[in-house]
Amino acid sequence: MSTNLRTIFFVSDSTGITVEKLGHSLLSQFPDINFQTVSLRYIDSKQKAENLRVEIEGAAKKTGRPPIIFSTLVEPKLREIVRTDVAVLLDLFEIFIGLLEVPLNQKATPTAGHAHYVAEPDKYMARMDAVNYALRYDDGLGVGESGYAQADVILLGVSRCGKTPVCLYLAMQYGIFAANYPLVDEDLQTTALPASLRAFKPKLFALTIEPLRLQKIRTRRQTGEEYAKIVQCRREVAQAETLFAENQLAMLDTSTISIEEIATQILMQLHLNR
Amino acid sequence: MSTNLRTIFFVSDSTGITVEKLGHSLLSQFPDINFQTVSLRYIDSKQKAENLRVEIEGAAKKTGRPPIIFSTLVEPKLREIVRTDVAVLLDLFEIFIGLLEVPLNQKATPTAGHAHYVAEPDKYMARMDAVNYALRYDDGLGVGESGYAQADVILLGVSRCGKTPVCLYLAMQYGIFAANYPLVDEDLQTTALPASLRAFKPKLFALTIEPLRLQKIRTRRQTGEEYAKIVQCRREVAQAETLFAENQLAMLDTSTISIEEIATQILMQLHLNR
Repeated sequence: MSTNLRTIFFVSDSTGITVEKLGHSLLSQFPDINFQTVSLRYIDSKQKAENLRVEIEGAAKKTGRPPIIFSTLVEPKLREIVRTDVAVLLDLFEIFIGLLEVPLNQKATPTAGHAHYVAEPDKYMARMDAVNYALRYDDGLGVGESGYAQADVILLGVSRCGKTPVCLYLAMQYGIFAANYPLVDEDLQTTALPASLRAFKPKLFALTIEPLRLQKIRTRRQTGEEYAKIVQCRREVAQAETLFAENQLAMLDTSTISIEEIATQILMQLHLNR
Repeated sequence: MSTNLRTIFFVSDSTGITVEKLGHSLLSQFPDINFQTVSLRYIDSKQKAENLRVEIEGAAKKTGRPPIIFSTLVEPKLREIVRTDVAVLLDLFEIFIGLLEVPLNQKATPTAGHAHYVAEPDKYMARMDAVNYALRYDDGLGVGESGYAQADVILLGVSRCGKTPVCLYLAMQYGIFAANYPLVDEDLQTTALPASLRAFKPKLFALTIEPLRLQKIRTRRQTGEEYAKIVQCRREVAQAETLFAENQLAMLDTSTISIEEIATQILMQLHLNR
């Protein structure tokens, strides 16, 4: 029996994405506890629920402490199978549907939560179109004015400051058409915007990064190159920031924040409300 | 005043991703109500919270019904500003932290939820490495045995069955190294696995799709080509499915399920527990 070890089960009848995200963010509020998490997805039959119950009871016995189960089981019968007095069951559906039925003055119609993406096929197709757009117009390769004209946002910044993953995330998650433009040495010789971007100023969003962080990322990729030297990183970042300031572009430092945070900051600052 | 219209606010002091996901999936259980949703991210100061309160009170007046607020505000003071008796406040932090402190026998240490990605820099770097891997080895271009040797999973299927976005999602969300191999006419002439994949059979996962759906997707991209004709789609899918069966590969039909569902099914079926 290990001290301060707690087993957490994330249980879902679907992908488990929501319950895992919420669970991890709640557990981060208890930094002194050593959590061992187990994700169990697609628990959508009596048999699977019964196997899960056995696993939960086993974990309770092994750790000597009640495991905590975060779940999103739409089907009440499955919840009842999983409910045991040796564990704590926090079912998001059960808790919230109860809290919603009263103010909405209506009973919920239990339908599996995972249907909501496919229930909106146009929205879903739009997300896929956006992913293809991001891939096609990655790194400013062969993008003419026609390519940029379709963009909701055009990210610019020095090589390896995080543009590509942010574009892909904006596309996949929000259906945003995001192109990106890497500032190369030639662009950085001047404080004017690159010619192909000038017509699209309201769509521009600048990313910057601390030179040391940039060096670390660049070194991870290609070693021994001019490109990853700290002096080069410092010079590029300074020149890029001057260019951004000169053109009064919205700018975000990506050094210590995640792709998700960069993407949602862009949505908010450019008022792209998806 | 519109009938059965309800305003929903998704409020967060950070990205709002968790609260939006949970909220949308809960609202999908009330199909008869016409929800108008508003996302408000980075509500992290008294001033922003006070502005939000004014907006909530305005919505209550306009619709004649109490708006519902789903929020994840770590700071209790901000929750108190947002709390008004003309709306229903469901704060995920407030609800769940209360439910967790008792069984964990410990008070929570309130820290902004968004820190949890950056709090694990190695894990975060691994996700970015996985995105770069997926981009580098997209479409089987130039992948030798050394490229596939690094893969956690190799998706195979006909062109446009959804391989690329699934690889990117697996990378971004779970740090999985996912490569993909598009089956071209030459591969489909035989039921043997393409030579470059034979050494990696346990990593293979096959995607299939209904021919009509495939045709629809292909037509969206390039019209008037042989490639998008239904007879061509039917033939390719039939040949691919024969190849998958002959080699006893795990296979999933992507026709009616989302990227998220495909990705999590792969995790589960290949026991990639991230």
